[in-house]
Amino acid sequence: MNVVLHGRSQHFRTVTFDRARNAVLLIEQRLLPHEFKIVAAKNFRETADAIRDMIVRGAGAIGATAAYGLAQGALAFRGNDLKKFTRHLEQVYGTLRDARPTAVDPVNAMNGLLTSMSQGETVAEQQLLALAAAEEFANDDVRHCEEIGRHGAKLIRNGMRVLTHCNAGWLAFVDIGTATAPLYAAQAQGKKFHVFCDETRPRSQGATLTAWELAQQKISHQIIADNAAGYLMQRGEIDLVIVGSDRTLGRTGEVANKIGTYTKAVLAARHKIPFYVAIPLSTIDWNLRRGSDIPIEERSESEVCGAWGIIADPRPKIRDPRPNRRAYVRVANPTSGARNPGFDVTPPDLITGIITPAGIFKPRELWKNRDRLGHA
Amino acid sequence: MNVVLHGRSQHFRTVTFDRARNAVLLIEQRLLPHEFKIVAAKNFRETADAIRDMIVRGAGAIGATAAYGLAQGALAFRGNDLKKFTRHLEQVYGTLRDARPTAVDPVNAMNGLLTSMSQGETVAEQQLLALAAAEEFANDDVRHCEEIGRHGAKLIRNGMRVLTHCNAGWLAFVDIGTATAPLYAAQAQGKKFHVFCDETRPRSQGATLTAWELAQQKISHQIIADNAAGYLMQRGEIDLVIVGSDRTLGRTGEVANKIGTYTKAVLAARHKIPFYVAIPLSTIDWNLRRGSDIPIEERSESEVCGAWGIIADPRPKIRDPRPNRRAYVRVANPTSGARNPGFDVTPPDLITGIITPAGIFKPRELWKNRDRLGHA
Repeated sequence: MNVVLHGRSQHFRTVTFDRARNAVLLIEQRLLPHEFKIVAAKNFRETADAIRDMIVRGAGAIGATAAYGLAQGALAFRGNDLKKFTRHLEQVYGTLRDARPTAVDPVNAMNGLLTSMSQGETVAEQQLLALAAAEEFANDDVRHCEEIGRHGAKLIRNGMRVLTHCNAGWLAFVDIGTATAPLYAAQAQGKKFHVFCDETRPRSQGATLTAWELAQQKISHQIIADNAAGYLMQRGEIDLVIVGSDRTLGRTGEVANKIGTYTKAVLAARHKIPFYVAIPLSTIDWNLRRGSDIPIEERSESEVCGAWGIIADPRPKIRDPRPNRRAYVRVANPTSGARNPGFDVTPPDLITGIITPAGIFKPRELWKNRDRLGHA
Repeated sequence: MNVVLHGRSQHFRTVTFDRARNAVLLIEQRLLPHEFKIVAAKNFRETADAIRDMIVRGAGAIGATAAYGLAQGALAFRGNDLKKFTRHLEQVYGTLRDARPTAVDPVNAMNGLLTSMSQGETVAEQQLLALAAAEEFANDDVRHCEEIGRHGAKLIRNGMRVLTHCNAGWLAFVDIGTATAPLYAAQAQGKKFHVFCDETRPRSQGATLTAWELAQQKISHQIIADNAAGYLMQRGEIDLVIVGSDRTLGRTGEVANKIGTYTKAVLAARHKIPFYVAIPLSTIDWNLRRGSDIPIEERSESEVCGAWGIIADPRPKIRDPRPNRRAYVRVANPTSGARNPGFDVTPPDLITGIITPAGIFKPRELWKNRDRLGHA
C-alpha cells in the first residue's frame, strides 16, 4: 500500500527482496506509527533476527519473510557441491524456523520452497527455483488479500461507518491485509466511508498500526477507546464490523482473534450490526473440534499496567511529537498486578460471515465448503 | 478508608476540616496512584482552586469540599455586621460554585448550609451553624455509603470474583464510596473474594484509583484491559458486576455512567451474571424522562490518543517506579484523530438491581419507591 513521504504517496510492500544486494527489505514496524523506515536484512541470520525481534510481525508477513530468507540463504551459497548445499540449507531453515518457534506460517512457506527446489538438479538451478518460489509465495499472499478485498468490498456502501479491531492490515501481510482489504478495495471503487479503529488495549495495535495505515491511504477514520464501541452502536453510528482472525476452526466456525473481538461481536449482535471476519486460508484449522481447546496465551502484566509511546504534549492540537523520545509509562497503581489474556474466541452464532479469498461463507458452512477452502 | 504509609495502615477521609488552621484538608488525587499526599487549602479561594484543578473529584467529595469551603469562608469573616457578612458569603458561594460550573453537588451542599445558617441571628451563630452543617453533610455522605455497603455486602459470597468499572470509590466520596462500599463491607465481615478492575480507558481510573484503593485495603484484585472482561465472563471467571452511576433516571431506571459501563452490562446479560449499580440518592434525576436526553460530554482526543503515567521499566517484576517522572506519551498514530464520549447510558433491562442507601431496588421500581428514595 501507499506511504506518504515528504508529501508524496509511494507504494511499499511490508517485505520485498533486493536481488542485487541479496537482501530482504522490511518495514521496521517497531518504529511505527511515529517513524517510517525500511531496513535491509543483509543475510539469512539478520532476516531471522528481524522475525525474532518483531521488526516484522503478522502471519502472512513473517511467512514471506522466511521464504525470502531461505532463498537469500540459498543464493549466498558458493560452489556446486549439492551435498554441502543441502547441509547449508538445513542450517538456514533451522535458523529461520527457530526465530518464531510457535508460528506456523514460516515453516509452511519454507516447506513450499523446498518442494519447488527439489525439481532443480544443480545448486544453481535450485537457487533460482528458491527465489522464484519465494516471489510466488509473496505474490500469492498479495493475490489472496486482493480476493478478500474483492469479496468484502461488496459489503461496504457509500456513507457507511465501519468498526475494526486490532490490526489485520497490510503490515501483517505482504500487502493489503485481510480485515483492511475490503476497505482498500472499496476505496479503489470510489466509495466513501468512515472507519472507527478500536484502540485495542493493551498493545494498542488499532491506535498505532491500523490508524497509521488508514492515514497513509487517506481513508477517513477516528480512533476510539475500546469502551466506546457500544455507545456508538447504541446511537446507530456503526453499520458494519470487520475483524481479522488468528485461528478459525473449519469444523465449527469459531474464531480466535485479539482480545476484545468477542466483546465487539456480542455488542454487534445486540444491535443487529453485521459482523464479518476476514481470513486468509492459512489460518483455518481443520483439525481442532472445539474453540475452548484453543490455547490462549497469557501475556505480560506490564502491557496492561502501562503504555508505550512518544513523550509528548497532551494538548489536543499537537499531533506531531518528535519520534526520538520513546518511553514506557506505568499508568496503573504500582502495587497492583494484572491478568492479560491475549486472545478470545467468538462463537459462530455471533458471526455474520467469514470473508475468504474464495468468497464469503457462513461460519458453520466452512466445513462443507472445505474443498474450495484449501482443505487437503 | 486506610492508607498504607511506611508499612502501617492509617485512616483518611478524602476531605476533612482542620478547625485550628481553618483549612480544608484533601487527598491530592492528581498524584495518585504514584504518590500519596494530603494538601491543605488555607482559604476558600484555595478550596475553590482545589475543586477546579481536580485535586478533589467525585460527586460526594466535591460536595463536601464545597460545604467545608463555605464554612471556611464564613469563619474567616471578622466583625459582627450581618449585612457585610452576607455580602461576603455571596462572594464565597459564587467562587466555590464557579469552580465546577456543571456539577450539582457543590451547589446542593452549599444550599443546605445556607438553610442551616439562616437559623442563626448573629454572625458568630451563623459561623458555628455553617461549620456544624458542613460536618453533618460530610458525615451524612459517609453514612449513606455505609448503608450502600450494608445492603450490597449481602450480594457478595465467599470466593466470588467481582468486576468493577472506573472509580466510584472512597476517593469520589468522603469515605467508603458507592460501588466499592459492598466490597469494603464484605471484607469487614470476613468474606474472601477477588476483584477484577477494568482499566477504564481512556482515563484509566480503574487501573489507577480503584486498584490503588483496593491495594490499600489489602483486597485481592487484578487489573484487566477493558477488552478482557468478555473473555473472563465466557470462562466463568466473573460472578458479579458492581459499578457506580453519574446520573440515574428515577422515572425509567436508566443509568448514565463512565463509558464502557453499557458494554459490561451487555456482556453480563449474555452470561447471566448479576449486574448491580450502586448510587447515592443525590445522583437520582427525578425529572428527565428519557436516557437519550442525557447530554454526553465529548472529551479531548488526547485522552484516547495517549496515556499519563510514570516513566518506568516495563519488565513485569518492577512495580515501583519513582514518582518524579510523570509524563504523557502519545501512543496513537500522530496524524489520526479520535472520538471520545465520556459516558454511556445502560437501559434498565440490563440491570439486576440498584443498590441505594435505602436498600436494593429493581431499576424500574425506583419511581414507585420515590418517597423512600428522597424524592421531594
